[in-house]
Amino acid sequence: MLDEFARIRLWTGERQRSALLRQQGVVLGIGDDAAVVEMPPDAAGGAAQWLLAVDTMVETVHFNDATMGEADVGWKALAANVSDIAAMGGVPRHALVSVSVPKKWEPARIGRLYDGLYACADQYGVAIVGGDTTSSPAHLVVAVTVTGTVEAGAAISRAGAAPGDAVFVTGPVGMSGAGLHWLLAAAMRGAGHPVPLAAAEADGTAVLVAAHRRPVPSVRAARMLAARGTLTSLNDVSDGLASEAWEIAEASGVSIVLRESQLPYSGSMTAYAHRSGADPLEWMLYGGEDYVLLGTIRQEDADAAKAALAAEGLPMYIIGEAAAGDAGVALIRDRQAGGGAGRREAIAKRGYNHFNG
Amino acid sequence: MLDEFARIRLWTGERQRSALLRQQGVVLGIGDDAAVVEMPPDAAGGAAQWLLAVDTMVETVHFNDATMGEADVGWKALAANVSDIAAMGGVPRHALVSVSVPKKWEPARIGRLYDGLYACADQYGVAIVGGDTTSSPAHLVVAVTVTGTVEAGAAISRAGAAPGDAVFVTGPVGMSGAGLHWLLAAAMRGAGHPVPLAAAEADGTAVLVAAHRRPVPSVRAARMLAARGTLTSLNDVSDGLASEAWEIAEASGVSIVLRESQLPYSGSMTAYAHRSGADPLEWMLYGGEDYVLLGTIRQEDADAAKAALAAEGLPMYIIGEAAAGDAGVALIRDRQAGGGAGRREAIAKRGYNHFNG
Repeated sequence: MLDEFARIRLWTGERQRSALLRQQGVVLGIGDDAAVVEMPPDAAGGAAQWLLAVDTMVETVHFNDATMGEADVGWKALAANVSDIAAMGGVPRHALVSVSVPKKWEPARIGRLYDGLYACADQYGVAIVGGDTTSSPAHLVVAVTVTGTVEAGAAISRAGAAPGDAVFVTGPVGMSGAGLHWLLAAAMRGAGHPVPLAAAEADGTAVLVAAHRRPVPSVRAARMLAARGTLTSLNDVSDGLASEAWEIAEASGVSIVLRESQLPYSGSMTAYAHRSGADPLEWMLYGGEDYVLLGTIRQEDADAAKAALAAEGLPMYIIGEAAAGDAGVALIRDRQAGGGAGRREAIAKRGYNHFNG
Repeated sequence: MLDEFARIRLWTGERQRSALLRQQGVVLGIGDDAAVVEMPPDAAGGAAQWLLAVDTMVETVHFNDATMGEADVGWKALAANVSDIAAMGGVPRHALVSVSVPKKWEPARIGRLYDGLYACADQYGVAIVGGDTTSSPAHLVVAVTVTGTVEAGAAISRAGAAPGDAVFVTGPVGMSGAGLHWLLAAAMRGAGHPVPLAAAEADGTAVLVAAHRRPVPSVRAARMLAARGTLTSLNDVSDGLASEAWEIAEASGVSIVLRESQLPYSGSMTAYAHRSGADPLEWMLYGGEDYVLLGTIRQEDADAAKAALAAEGLPMYIIGEAAAGDAGVALIRDRQAGGGAGRREAIAKRGYNHFNG
């Protein structure tokens, strides 16, 4: 389809610096039947291994035109994939992008989508080497595939947690879910399509909306932690803390015990929950789309790892530990005094049921 | 989303032989944040390069529920990508699959889609290492990304054709377009959803329908030709002979001159065109989705290459030659005697405008 080629050239042609492409081993980029890439020079050469992941965002399922602007969708579609590479302890390298655009869209909207995508690519040094832009009868669908590299044998799966390991996250959780909650309410009030960030700023929820629209995957933290050799499992929080902890528990055959008092409650999230009558713990456990990392690390290295990340300005919160026992997730309710304080609750396996429940 | 994980496990869990996965360098397959792969042992080790391509099929844009069954969609979505790897002279290795499934679909339909996908994967030895199954508000969208390998520096782009080179295709073209033509007419007659193959068999068009629904990419032919060292450009016929020839002409800076008398007219296509009052040349030039290869090869090796492929039962048709001059495509009308026979016509650059025109 010639229109497609013309469009792809317009939005993707020579948008990235040749230094970035060279650094990522791109021999031939967008424009032929397939891209040609080789192991990047900084990736331990032929001894490195490749990571491959795919993630899809569908309008009305994962977002709508009130919750996300086009550039947000582009950013987040790539960020979700970058986060998958981080969750294996790797370095993101290349991306291939499939965009199915509603026929009614004006070209400027597609342009903004690619702007967001390339902004995220530049942020993480990802070379976009493939694209397929098709029309869609009704809804926007963005599917992104990424490659990454990792030192041979060093990929961190979900399966290595052992009893006694410390459980950590690399950032607050629940903020994205809180941001979505606010966005849906704002959309109901007719705040706009997309709901403007200024409305969130006026309402003190801008940081929550940003967490939802422009997640920032923990690539650097993952690389630093993986290099220590004490990381035993790693997962990214795409479907909520509960679901991700369950995945590690089941893959590793351990019980994951979280302490409510140690969970990183964001002040903005807590304040908004208070105002809106919501339970912030619900967003933390089941909100999803935070794209921070949840992992386990040998207990004896946990404090040193946290200090090393802090020295680089990167957060790390120890939120519990892995224990022997049936695979499962429990939460110790030790945050507030009063009746039932300190009791242990089993956390259900349910995850994030996407946008509309 | 737990439902998603359960579904993916059901449709993709341990469906491929471990020997295939090992042969393709799969260290960790579907089930974690990302797959881990290494250069396959038979791929010239670290000296090989990787090929990456993505292709998307959208219901109502590329197919509908009359023209294609679910298994056909699965097959063709992967085959189109395998063809992109073939068109670079490479070997397909891995695939990652994004499927957005209409909410109204029964699970059995999704199962059939994956059946077709895995059938194609097995046919070409492709390891499926990633999947993302999401729901879609209305229409099926399938986006597939493939990896392949090629000897370092040996990828065949569109840009190497030189004046004097022979132009060839690795199979008949236009059959898929003819098959689509018949399917749309059959759907109008209410022949079923999907139109059953038996109806095509009764009508003598089964081979055309099969060409449309189950294309067979020319991986072996591409590998044999690339190994000769005389191949100068290569493209797969996804958008019709005219569009693909234009791409080579523009990328290489040559004029491509095709001879109508040398084009591979399939007997079934010609017979159906005659019956339906259609012009078979239109399907050949602009039909698309044939997924055979169009390329150029040094003139002095053309006959020997053709003989070598024939010895393996693989077709190759010399259909014209590259010439000096402005980038463009011309057709010499030398197939039929009579007025205007032998005249040279410029071939427009338009390509396949997808399903609904």
